[in-house]
Amino acid sequence: MPLTPDQRSEITALRAETRPTRRPTVPALEEILYEPQPVLDRGFVRVVDYMGDDAAVVQAARVSYGRGTKSVRDDAGLINYLMRHRHTTPFEMCEIKFHVKLPIFVARQWIRHRTANVNEYSARYSVVEDEFYIPAPEQLAAQSASNRQGRGAVLAGADAERALAILKEDARRSYERYRELLNETSDGKAIEEGRDGLARELARMNLTLNVYTQWYWKVDLHNLLRFLSLRADAHAQYEIRVYAEAMLAVVARWVPQVHAAFMDHEVGGARLSAKGLAVVRRMLAGEAVAQGDSGLSAREWRELMAVLGRQAP
Amino acid sequence: MPLTPDQRSEITALRAETRPTRRPTVPALEEILYEPQPVLDRGFVRVVDYMGDDAAVVQAARVSYGRGTKSVRDDAGLINYLMRHRHTTPFEMCEIKFHVKLPIFVARQWIRHRTANVNEYSARYSVVEDEFYIPAPEQLAAQSASNRQGRGAVLAGADAERALAILKEDARRSYERYRELLNETSDGKAIEEGRDGLARELARMNLTLNVYTQWYWKVDLHNLLRFLSLRADAHAQYEIRVYAEAMLAVVARWVPQVHAAFMDHEVGGARLSAKGLAVVRRMLAGEAVAQGDSGLSAREWRELMAVLGRQAP
Amino acid sequence: MPLTPDQRSEITALRAETRPTRRPTVPALEEILYEPQPVLDRGFVRVVDYMGDDAAVVQAARVSYGRGTKSVRDDAGLINYLMRHRHTTPFEMCEIKFHVKLPIFVARQWIRHRTANVNEYSARYSVVEDEFYIPAPEQLAAQSASNRQGRGAVLAGADAERALAILKEDARRSYERYRELLNETSDGKAIEEGRDGLARELARMNLTLNVYTQWYWKVDLHNLLRFLSLRADAHAQYEIRVYAEAMLAVVARWVPQVHAAFMDHEVGGARLSAKGLAVVRRMLAGEAVAQGDSGLSAREWRELMAVLGRQAP
Amino acid sequence: MPLTPDQRSEITALRAETRPTRRPTVPALEEILYEPQPVLDRGFVRVVDYMGDDAAVVQAARVSYGRGTKSVRDDAGLINYLMRHRHTTPFEMCEIKFHVKLPIFVARQWIRHRTANVNEYSARYSVVEDEFYIPAPEQLAAQSASNRQGRGAVLAGADAERALAILKEDARRSYERYRELLNETSDGKAIEEGRDGLARELARMNLTLNVYTQWYWKVDLHNLLRFLSLRADAHAQYEIRVYAEAMLAVVARWVPQVHAAFMDHEVGGARLSAKGLAVVRRMLAGEAVAQGDSGLSAREWRELMAVLGRQAP
Repeated sequence: MPLTPDQRSEITALRAETRPTRRPTVPALEEILYEPQPVLDRGFVRVVDYMGDDAAVVQAARVSYGRGTKSVRDDAGLINYLMRHRHTTPFEMCEIKFHVKLPIFVARQWIRHRTANVNEYSARYSVVEDEFYIPAPEQLAAQSASNRQGRGAVLAGADAERALAILKEDARRSYERYRELLNETSDGKAIEEGRDGLARELARMNLTLNVYTQWYWKVDLHNLLRFLSLRADAHAQYEIRVYAEAMLAVVARWVPQVHAAFMDHEVGGARLSAKGLAVVRRMLAGEAVAQGDSGLSAREWRELMAVLGRQAP
Repeated sequence: MPLTPDQRSEITALRAETRPTRRPTVPALEEILYEPQPVLDRGFVRVVDYMGDDAAVVQAARVSYGRGTKSVRDDAGLINYLMRHRHTTPFEMCEIKFHVKLPIFVARQWIRHRTANVNEYSARYSVVEDEFYIPAPEQLAAQSASNRQGRGAVLAGADAERALAILKEDARRSYERYRELLNETSDGKAIEEGRDGLARELARMNLTLNVYTQWYWKVDLHNLLRFLSLRADAHAQYEIRVYAEAMLAVVARWVPQVHAAFMDHEVGGARLSAKGLAVVRRMLAGEAVAQGDSGLSAREWRELMAVLGRQAP
Repeated sequence: MPLTPDQRSEITALRAETRPTRRPTVPALEEILYEPQPVLDRGFVRVVDYMGDDAAVVQAARVSYGRGTKSVRDDAGLINYLMRHRHTTPFEMCEIKFHVKLPIFVARQWIRHRTANVNEYSARYSVVEDEFYIPAPEQLAAQSASNRQGRGAVLAGADAERALAILKEDARRSYERYRELLNETSDGKAIEEGRDGLARELARMNLTLNVYTQWYWKVDLHNLLRFLSLRADAHAQYEIRVYAEAMLAVVARWVPQVHAAFMDHEVGGARLSAKGLAVVRRMLAGEAVAQGDSGLSAREWRELMAVLGRQAP
Repeated sequence: MPLTPDQRSEITALRAETRPTRRPTVPALEEILYEPQPVLDRGFVRVVDYMGDDAAVVQAARVSYGRGTKSVRDDAGLINYLMRHRHTTPFEMCEIKFHVKLPIFVARQWIRHRTANVNEYSARYSVVEDEFYIPAPEQLAAQSASNRQGRGAVLAGADAERALAILKEDARRSYERYRELLNETSDGKAIEEGRDGLARELARMNLTLNVYTQWYWKVDLHNLLRFLSLRADAHAQYEIRVYAEAMLAVVARWVPQVHAAFMDHEVGGARLSAKGLAVVRRMLAGEAVAQGDSGLSAREWRELMAVLGRQAP
């Protein structure tokens, strides 16, 4: 996540200044405001602005003239209740704005979450920088044999070296040829004097999907939690999960009571189907239930046993 | 817009305190923060929180590390360009939260704008206060003869008195019987000891549509401008238009450059159809065009002439 | 749900005609197409159009050139998997359009579901009919003592009669005075010759919240299921729940495989928090767990025991 | 747009069968149902399903029990009125589902339109086919000198050949190395026996942005028109504009009255700012207005003169 000196000094300038406000503030979040949190080899997440705090959730749920309830403890209880009973609208009353630097193939998954505001760096308007994601060796995993959208064992030895070499070479080569198509060096000079460069909006198609892009991404707390619930999950691809984890740490700073309720009810919780629940009730009644007489498929049975801590997932 | 002493003191307490923040602030908006702006006879709009300012629009459009452009003048130019070319996403990067008190029939129009976050006072959970909208005499208009969804001349004399009396009596009477159904006085006591009151979620159906409700309404700047473009318009019903006008004044304080561009391109501007544009071109070429050979219907012709300032709308 | 002869004959005409289509059709749904399904005393839900079927969910999940999978059984398996793992986008690929007649206070809850398309009958443009919801005697419940947004025992005897009388009288009276304000009889004649009626957009504020309105409501299957999951639930108010139940029956006709998966995973299923799950694991391990050492509040404990079938909810 | 024999026969099978329906049908659209309409060198747009027609817009605007108005002419008049006055909700009552094959860099622009339902071919789950977009020679344009996001003159001679060669070579090479990373031939065999292939979700990052992807895209008519208004516009990049044009032709078949109103009010129409309108009024009054005393910037002036047909855009 190498910032240029100009970027670094712009951030430092923003962080240096404070102004008075009548709005609620969250000191723990102010502390890291504007500061990039590194993700992957060259990516980052940084909070650029925010609105609201734990008390703002309570305030909206009560449609009150003042803030929150009388006590922090009552606030936590109400937030817990709202989360448990899926009263989601009060969580929409907090908002956060991130500046994110991420590989294009990650951006393509991310953008599927539609209830957010986005402004992406335009490769039609501007020239793309030569930064691409190259997985760390421990992330170079083989295709999973059992799960079509998962990873298996980590590649080792020559296989790993070969894979890394290909990813590096092709990203580099495609990027250099992108510059050649544009006829423009990194200093903005012509590579060959007098030759017309291909339009940026066309030349970009020569780039590979691990090139980094950037965007401003603004979202309300409820929709952020939905994003995190799906993307901080073990089934999510590692390369997006690390962004979700960085943002989950931001949520812990920003709205600690909401974070606690979310960890309890979403991240650490589980959903049981009617059939799964029937199995649990029978087991609690002392019955020995087997998959064959559970009404569950073999796969559902495995998933249920993992939830109940009776076998590996 | 009578606040109770408790509400007044909650607001005063919020306004009294300031805290330092690294976020952008807008002093002109801070000035009125939390303070109810009166609308209609007992309604209000008050800003409860906000995120961003003019520079935040520019910052997002550029996906920059710092804020805005080098100069205020460049910011205004870019904002104007974005508005003119319908690049709407940068305007979504500012957010504002209102607390609004409004009659139910106005709330029913308002809620049709879906891209916003809402928490409404719950008449299922709580008892509704006895506040209803009664139009000022100059708003007691007859049905328009020419426009099925418009108003004609203002009622006068006995007709006006009779209408006012009905509205007042029926709202009052329905409200009192709502209390009787609940078996609950305004002090929360039983009207008749020992009688079970009807459930709140049922009793509320006895209320009339001019009863006031309240909500927290949070929206991004782009969607707020769309709301204002439709609701601050002459075709909007007076009772919602006055809310839109109060919010337009808030926009002028909050993001003056965006406000100026919006007034120029949306509020004061006009849309011409292909046929309408052809008429304008012919007229500019010196041709005398009549409705009969314009390709426009009589109504479209009237609308076009009004836009061109050639006849009353 | 009394239709006028004109409405009845319009519906009959629509039902009489069939045309050939290359699109997927669902005979069980065609059977009831356009036909109002009665809800409450004068309301209805009727399906006006639909797009897609069970196979369309599969087709979209596979982004295929043809339809579904090879077998109905495989389709069901995939649908089950998608539902279980919250892959919600394929369910968005089916769409349905309802015409609904419902009391205004129900419409106000319903409209909070924003991801849908709505066209409501306009009381600004047209005169409202004299139809209002009056609860059946067995629905006239007292306020719940334990749950602020719930119902307690059904009112009986004189209390019930008095409540019914109030609701009927006030709705009727407010409606008649609405007509007086409009100066318009049900035949569209002036009540008093020569008097200007109040504008429709104003007069409507005299109506009570149990007056019936109507709308076209179009929604995709995923968002319909979210609506049903919240509104066909025991915590929803009876007056909206009956609409949800009528629509759930429509879903069973339309997409029986999706319906089965929804009943298993949403309607009959349960969500456990991390703490709740820990309790279940301890109980399955043979431990006797009490609320005091469960980490759950008394209320959470009661809710969990109800889910596990160990005590009434 | 080469279909495999399997794809071709799946489409033929779908087109061969018709079933009776009570729903509205549009014969002109049924005619091309399922049939791919070629776009770019290997892409397509094909209609997979639809709901509603011109009359459905009218039906929803009137919240009627039957269909449309009495006459086709009245329907057209009402549709025109709705479009002119931005009553957009009735247009949301029609829905269409497309299957689209398109280059990834086009998909990245397209997906920014959020109010739509999407299921994309998953490169996490499946192996991507070797199909990439290579511009036709007449599309190989230089960067525009005046417009940072536009194209200038078409490249010619050796420059064009060189650009084409790079695009072809790099897409091909990156694709072959993607296969090498996967260790999988196009027949699904291992390239090297016994070697573990890299996980699909990782290997895909080696692909270039002109590789074709596919998705199901479902949208309501109002949001489709917004998409077309921005993407069938001269300012849109050619590679997405051709998709918009193919879909505009679909709209003409599907809802000819809506299409006509859209061409008149959106595609062929213009928006004037308050300042621009003031200029037009002065010119119509016979005044000779120059940019200097117009209140418009040089750029705004040029844009206005182009709209008025007084000079090239």
